[in-house]
Amino acid sequence: MASVQDISVSAAINLISALVFLLAFAIVRLQPINDRVYFPKWYLKGIRASPRSSGSFVNKFVNLDFRTYIRFLNWMPAALKMPEQELIHHAGLDSAVYIRIYLLGLKIFVPITVLSFAVLVPVNWTSGETLDHIEDLTFSNIDKLSISNVPSGSPRFWAHVAMAYVYTFWTFYILYKEYKTISTMRLHFLASDKRRPDQFTVLVRNVPPDPDESVNEHVEHFFRVNHPDHYLTHQVVYNANKVAELVEKKKSFHNWLIYYQTKYERNPENKPKIKTGFWGLWGKSVDAIDYYMTEIEKLTEEEAEEREKVISDPNAIVPAAFVSFKSRWGAAVCAQTQLSRNSTIWLTDWAPEPRDVYWDNLSIPYVQLSVRRLLMAVALFFLTFFFMIPIGFVQAFASIDGIEKALPFLKPLIDMDVVKSFVQGFLPGIVLKIFLILLPMILMIMSKIEGFTSLSSLDRRSAAKYHLFVIVNVFFGSIITGAAFEQLERFLHQSPTEIPKTIGVTLPMKATFFITFIMVDGWAGIAAEILRLVPLVMFHIKNTFLVKTEHDREQAMDPGSLNFSVAEPRLQLYFLLGLVYSVVTPILLPFIIVFFAFAYMVFRHQIINVYDQKYESGASFWPDVNRRILIGLGISQLLLIGLLSTKHASKSTPLLIVLTVLTIWFHKFCKDRFESVFVKFPLQDAVVKDTVERTTEPNFNLKEYLQDAYLHPVLKGIELEILKELDDEENNLLVATKRTSRWSSNTVSNATSEEQKTVSEMRLVL
Amino acid sequence: MASVQDISVSAAINLISALVFLLAFAIVRLQPINDRVYFPKWYLKGIRASPRSSGSFVNKFVNLDFRTYIRFLNWMPAALKMPEQELIHHAGLDSAVYIRIYLLGLKIFVPITVLSFAVLVPVNWTSGETLDHIEDLTFSNIDKLSISNVPSGSPRFWAHVAMAYVYTFWTFYILYKEYKTISTMRLHFLASDKRRPDQFTVLVRNVPPDPDESVNEHVEHFFRVNHPDHYLTHQVVYNANKVAELVEKKKSFHNWLIYYQTKYERNPENKPKIKTGFWGLWGKSVDAIDYYMTEIEKLTEEEAEEREKVISDPNAIVPAAFVSFKSRWGAAVCAQTQLSRNSTIWLTDWAPEPRDVYWDNLSIPYVQLSVRRLLMAVALFFLTFFFMIPIGFVQAFASIDGIEKALPFLKPLIDMDVVKSFVQGFLPGIVLKIFLILLPMILMIMSKIEGFTSLSSLDRRSAAKYHLFVIVNVFFGSIITGAAFEQLERFLHQSPTEIPKTIGVTLPMKATFFITFIMVDGWAGIAAEILRLVPLVMFHIKNTFLVKTEHDREQAMDPGSLNFSVAEPRLQLYFLLGLVYSVVTPILLPFIIVFFAFAYMVFRHQIINVYDQKYESGASFWPDVNRRILIGLGISQLLLIGLLSTKHASKSTPLLIVLTVLTIWFHKFCKDRFESVFVKFPLQDAVVKDTVERTTEPNFNLKEYLQDAYLHPVLKGIELEILKELDDEENNLLVATKRTSRWSSNTVSNATSEEQKTVSEMRLVL
Repeated sequence: MASVQDISVSAAINLISALVFLLAFAIVRLQPINDRVYFPKWYLKGIRASPRSSGSFVNKFVNLDFRTYIRFLNWMPAALKMPEQELIHHAGLDSAVYIRIYLLGLKIFVPITVLSFAVLVPVNWTSGETLDHIEDLTFSNIDKLSISNVPSGSPRFWAHVAMAYVYTFWTFYILYKEYKTISTMRLHFLASDKRRPDQFTVLVRNVPPDPDESVNEHVEHFFRVNHPDHYLTHQVVYNANKVAELVEKKKSFHNWLIYYQTKYERNPENKPKIKTGFWGLWGKSVDAIDYYMTEIEKLTEEEAEEREKVISDPNAIVPAAFVSFKSRWGAAVCAQTQLSRNSTIWLTDWAPEPRDVYWDNLSIPYVQLSVRRLLMAVALFFLTFFFMIPIGFVQAFASIDGIEKALPFLKPLIDMDVVKSFVQGFLPGIVLKIFLILLPMILMIMSKIEGFTSLSSLDRRSAAKYHLFVIVNVFFGSIITGAAFEQLERFLHQSPTEIPKTIGVTLPMKATFFITFIMVDGWAGIAAEILRLVPLVMFHIKNTFLVKTEHDREQAMDPGSLNFSVAEPRLQLYFLLGLVYSVVTPILLPFIIVFFAFAYMVFRHQIINVYDQKYESGASFWPDVNRRILIGLGISQLLLIGLLSTKHASKSTPLLIVLTVLTIWFHKFCKDRFESVFVKFPLQDAVVKDTVERTTEPNFNLKEYLQDAYLHPVLKGIELEILKELDDEENNLLVATKRTSRWSSNTVSNATSEEQKTVSEMRLVL
Repeated sequence: MASVQDISVSAAINLISALVFLLAFAIVRLQPINDRVYFPKWYLKGIRASPRSSGSFVNKFVNLDFRTYIRFLNWMPAALKMPEQELIHHAGLDSAVYIRIYLLGLKIFVPITVLSFAVLVPVNWTSGETLDHIEDLTFSNIDKLSISNVPSGSPRFWAHVAMAYVYTFWTFYILYKEYKTISTMRLHFLASDKRRPDQFTVLVRNVPPDPDESVNEHVEHFFRVNHPDHYLTHQVVYNANKVAELVEKKKSFHNWLIYYQTKYERNPENKPKIKTGFWGLWGKSVDAIDYYMTEIEKLTEEEAEEREKVISDPNAIVPAAFVSFKSRWGAAVCAQTQLSRNSTIWLTDWAPEPRDVYWDNLSIPYVQLSVRRLLMAVALFFLTFFFMIPIGFVQAFASIDGIEKALPFLKPLIDMDVVKSFVQGFLPGIVLKIFLILLPMILMIMSKIEGFTSLSSLDRRSAAKYHLFVIVNVFFGSIITGAAFEQLERFLHQSPTEIPKTIGVTLPMKATFFITFIMVDGWAGIAAEILRLVPLVMFHIKNTFLVKTEHDREQAMDPGSLNFSVAEPRLQLYFLLGLVYSVVTPILLPFIIVFFAFAYMVFRHQIINVYDQKYESGASFWPDVNRRILIGLGISQLLLIGLLSTKHASKSTPLLIVLTVLTIWFHKFCKDRFESVFVKFPLQDAVVKDTVERTTEPNFNLKEYLQDAYLHPVLKGIELEILKELDDEENNLLVATKRTSRWSSNTVSNATSEEQKTVSEMRLVL
């Protein structure tokens, strides 16, 4: 058990490292040369021009205006200044709602902290079993402030039970209010949103094979029959994985070409050569620039050929299609209803945004999908429960005793007070952190295997897996492994009433560990986030070797994005810790509040200045956030039951079980009340938007607008053939003419996908 | 532990009582006077005329044709003769599918029994720990044939594990095939069904209050805006509970009037008098016939007044409505989509059949509904877990020891062998049965409080509650209470791995108890069902005192109906027992097979000749049936794990856990694959039916057809005012004229609800 001294050392270390990060950020950020690393969002928006284009040579790289350094923390108020409406417009609803989670943390925990310090801390503090203890103000142990200081069977526990009620109802109230706000925000966002292809489009999967018709014809005929008044057009899905591969390869070759060209320009005497063999290690030595130029030419041809092949080959069409309707009403109806008697074919769902589509998963047959999910569920179980054996092992090793035993020569070093505190306060958190970094990729791959069709759902799904992992391994694992690794084994051999007791008892003892964890992961970690060390280094490497034009520089920027699948479950750990310790060890709460406040500011700054979201899902992750906070609340109640029953206060158990039942009910209530806003689109809103649009733009050609929105990104630009084929049935000369002129003269303005828009915006900037 | 002798006594008793019931049925059924009790379905269909109308006086009451008695069992082949298609047409899909559950039982258990007797019985039988036991052919104990005969740690247990796999996959296969068949049957039934109001109608609940508009106007405007092309008409819902009460009261008074009139006719000298006070016990003595005649007159007036009031009073309109559409497509779309942003208002769902509507629950606000469900869930928990204390108490009392202790003077009687066997073999089953009779009413009331809006959903919901009760109290209760009552307490204080062990150990010992139970409940009980003793007595009482005309006789018939909410969960107990004991004590299986075969015949006979279903839900209960059989399968696997681990065969645990995981997955698979057929109506089918109908009957006036289909039954006939009001907006003279003529001259033929149809059919018969 770490003492207050250990905590102080750890706090000092973490505060200092956080400050160092912040200072480094303040200095590095002001250098014009780094401008694109710290303000990429503005560049992408086309609002910020490169500061390097004006001023003296030195000014292009180093900021010599010392006044700006004095205000090195002024990014904080700046980050808070932008009003929420503008933020939504600037960064999208996903990001704006995401940072509201931090705000939600503050809303929940600030009043809880105040109440805890006003009520529970005095109750605990004055509960020393002998009066002497109260006099002893040196408090070498923070247990004085925690529930462990209250003697068994004391009537003082009623205060804790009462506070558990207050905290639960406060959390309900805040969550309900927040859910309501977010769903209004979402509806408002969807309603005020500009026209988007996905509003009119439904993704149809598992199109059954038809012996007489191609997928293309089959889809058209099916929807013309079953949605006669509303069907507009559709886009079949091509299996363009090979083309995508070629495009990737070409891009990499292109980078090498530029690298060698730059090299040659800087040193014209020495023409760069490479070997053509494996990894450039052996083989014939040739001129690098020539080599890459011919290779790129070859690839370009190959790519064009492959594209032709994909579009003309009926086998390259997967049994899925994006079907568009004449109105939002028609799309809403089709997305929410069942089409076929057989619920495994003609599956309809809202189409994701074009940039949100995960193309590889569109063709998985139904039964395979079902088997894949079973396998992944089993895999997740094993990953979750057997991954923690290494964690426990490493943590046991990373204790004072473990190190002394394994590496006895370090003993004199470790016995020094500072080092000892460091090892005890810092190492366990670091160990945990390293483990956590490894995981998200595996979970994302698992989600991809499960067959989700949009990036946003992949993210949400990975987040769910990660959350399970964090609860089992980080939270319960940290509480229990100290004693033994065999968590699952113990759970199976203990009675359901014993488990909360076992965990409840160790809970107060682990408070200091979690405080350390919060400081390492929450404070220093967030400060490191704002410094963006990796993107900074990467940008400068690219800038040196690959950038020739402003366009290349644009490409070298890596704005990154909020990684929902990792960030949100990690964030949930803080909610869980806060809720669990709010009654048990309130001293932990201020650390959580600092985390939420600091992270809110940092991420608001990042969202405004840095991140560029890959997709916009309209905050469709909120039901998950709400559910997980309630899971945390439920866990906190069960652990309190266990803790109190070991303290001979089991009379309180029925009272606390009522709370748990209420929590489950509240979850169900929220789900019924709000969730549909996040999965369905109300017809009422669809009608309103349709009517408004029909009135304001009566002559808008929707079909033209939607025509190529859902073409695989690598196929864009050469879809002429397929379009002609699609129009064969109409034979309307007027329309045909129009379309030809469109394709010959006016490609950019008709480009519809968000991706193309971004590109065109970028071009305008350059 | 009951011996084979006890079982034989019990079997003899139950077989004899079953035979007595069957003989009684055979004799009683053939008497013309009872014809209406045993063939009411045919009377209701109008196919069978009263046999009493022809022949001699005696022949009217007693069947003297002795040849018919010889063939007293010929109802059995007769019951099996009707082909399924005809049965569906005759009795509806609900009934036809319901009896398929018994057939499903046979399909699952006949092969399992054969395999068990071929493989497991020899394995168990030859496993006696000493060879002597095998010689001992008197087998005083049926344990010889059960898994308990296999010594601990024997490799023979692999046979049981292998069989568990075979049985599980066989069950999967049969369940999948059956689910597929039933869903095809349902789709075919819906597709080939004649036009019904509910195909075009959606029930809208939680219509929000509007300050400017009445509910009537608000509904119309809302749907005209949001379903502009499809909305046809709607019917507001009146709170007609008071009128319904008056109608009930009048009916009862009318019965009394007829009773006294009959009495007076038979004995004209003695004019019947009654006292007007409480329950006819005191007060002024008046002439009974006059009294009831004036009372009925008064009630008729009051009723008319109340009806006027309900229809004219805007406060009598509840915030719900039945909205009808121009096509099935429109209704299917509206039922499956969300209308409003706020998911607690404008809730849409398929309208139940008119006769299936449970009118009292249409006006419950959303939040109240949510709270009601919470309260009922808590109530169900207490009912389920604390109801079993009395069961355990009574069962402990009803044992030999218990009776001898409580009533020592019975000792000599009980010590007689026959009585002893009777007490041991018969009483526990009876005790259980009595308890089970009390319950369904409570559960139905609970379901009504939960706010379901159709009789079919109430039945399904009560069945779910009853099923939980049966599993916890009848199944687990019977296995554990023998040792102690504190089942829940034990469950809470045992580890999850201990619970299956505790139950697994006692499992083989309880086989004889369950065999007795099957014979009492399954054999004799089903035979009693076919005799219909209660309806028989009731019919003759009514026939004597109330029947004056053939119409009254029609009214006196009580065909009854399949009580799904009770029958199905009870039936599930047999599946559970069969699956659990298929590996443990195969000797139980033949008893189950006899039950399924016998019950299949009996219920097929009853459905053909007796029952008159109150509603037709198109077999929408099948997902529940499938799920519950899988729950039984899962329980059987968990118990086998427990049993085997107490037998030192815990190496098999991982293998059996794989089975449990597969069972859960198979449930999910079935749900995803088939369930939507039972809750949604595919647009494809809707389009086909709409098109066919539009072609065959282009001039059908759907609006007229639907106009009063969903009027509260007690308000039927006087809805003129409201209809006029509804048409005010149209002001189409032609339509108005048509409608007036319809109401003045042609009420019966336009009566649309199934209820009215039945009544009119009945009238045609008379």
